[in-house]
Amino acid sequence: MKRAELVNRIFEKQSFLCVGLDPDLEKIPKHLLESENPVLEFNKAIIEATAPYCVAYKPNLAFFEALGETGMQTFYETLKCIPKSHFVIADAKRGDIGNTSKKYAEAFFEKFDCDALTIAPYMGADSVQPFLGESGKWAVLLALTSNPGADDFEQLPLANGKRLFEEVIDKAMEWGSAEELMFVVGATRPEELKKIRERAPGYFFLIPGVGAQGGNLEEVAAAALTTDCGILVNASRSILYASSGIDFAEKASNEAKAMQVEMAKFLL
Amino acid sequence: MKRAELVNRIFEKQSFLCVGLDPDLEKIPKHLLESENPVLEFNKAIIEATAPYCVAYKPNLAFFEALGETGMQTFYETLKCIPKSHFVIADAKRGDIGNTSKKYAEAFFEKFDCDALTIAPYMGADSVQPFLGESGKWAVLLALTSNPGADDFEQLPLANGKRLFEEVIDKAMEWGSAEELMFVVGATRPEELKKIRERAPGYFFLIPGVGAQGGNLEEVAAAALTTDCGILVNASRSILYASSGIDFAEKASNEAKAMQVEMAKFLL
Repeated sequence: MKRAELVNRIFEKQSFLCVGLDPDLEKIPKHLLESENPVLEFNKAIIEATAPYCVAYKPNLAFFEALGETGMQTFYETLKCIPKSHFVIADAKRGDIGNTSKKYAEAFFEKFDCDALTIAPYMGADSVQPFLGESGKWAVLLALTSNPGADDFEQLPLANGKRLFEEVIDKAMEWGSAEELMFVVGATRPEELKKIRERAPGYFFLIPGVGAQGGNLEEVAAAALTTDCGILVNASRSILYASSGIDFAEKASNEAKAMQVEMAKFLL
Repeated sequence: MKRAELVNRIFEKQSFLCVGLDPDLEKIPKHLLESENPVLEFNKAIIEATAPYCVAYKPNLAFFEALGETGMQTFYETLKCIPKSHFVIADAKRGDIGNTSKKYAEAFFEKFDCDALTIAPYMGADSVQPFLGESGKWAVLLALTSNPGADDFEQLPLANGKRLFEEVIDKAMEWGSAEELMFVVGATRPEELKKIRERAPGYFFLIPGVGAQGGNLEEVAAAALTTDCGILVNASRSILYASSGIDFAEKASNEAKAMQVEMAKFLL
């Protein structure tokens, strides 16, 4: 999906919500465990319940791979449940030497036809570039993440005066335009979010960490929203596991709707 | 597989060779394309042909994921072809926030029962720690890789005087012992390899880049070999694609054997 189309959808639906699909067998409602493919049933119900209120889905590959050899089949079946109108981010944190990254791009952009893939920057240019340059496909590069470990390397001061994540953003903007590259910036650090917006004014940010990880939507919007929105805010656990009972889909829908209603205020 | 067992195997077989399984449909011999699962046939033949000369296999997940929804089934079937005597490194470069990394550990250590998994360090401690602490299981952490992009971030000088990959190694040694943590250090930079060996004398290194990427085995051994070996040298393309004809397995076997014979000289 191209940028203009994504922006249109955001304003039409008055939502910049991305629903993270982290289907955990230990957390999904017990009554689903009797079905043939509990994870697929769960995902399908969550997608149906939340589709009116979000513009994107972010399936997390770890939760599919944890199913073993049938996991990617379930990932594939899950993708088929997502309406064509929604932007799909495969949250896989891939990145390897050039010829291997090319294969990951082939996997997620061609075979699975996702719109975007999250990428880890550690290995540098030739590990990231194979994900750039395909029309309507996106590399979503880790910059400053929402977890405690972000202090270990991402925040380290470099000899050139920048911090590592700032250098990652600066170099990556030389590699890819705002039509093909987004950055992951955690909601748990709103003061940083504002500075990162100044550094990369034209780029979309994928912002995890609202909800279970403690980030606040109003602070995020104040710090990073642009005239064409420029952000996708992800919520996973707070929506998926809003209830562990038979009403899980209804509760997920309510939760997504509540976020959409709050988001609409910022999109006026 | 525990460290003592791995070291025993290395000295018994007089080999520290790891064969990288990067099965590329565009490169495997054409006559295999007629079989039901060409990639599996290819892997099976390569494993049979090289098992006497190597101690480890490193299947590269990108090449399995590029097969689409059946890829992980082929990965699983490939694992079943690897003799129990061999150390298995899933080359997947995973790493995410703690609860997601836990799922990746579950996938590769429990479901697929691999001995080791390659991990990207960018997201810090809580992204790496879920891969540590399981007896006989290993996190193989990216330190200094063999690709050109290593100059972009890994080699960056930090304000504390170290380079990023040195900080990664120092911090990671606080997180994990030499019984559960290895480092990826590219063969293409032997002068660095020697310094990294001084920095992390007790840890195993997984060394890619010998062969197609231009690294030299003698230089690598001189720089990084320890009294209990301490290295696994990976070769992928130079073995897998030694021939594109019907003799591919024989040629792969010859190539692996030649490397083993050279390795034996350094293990005396």
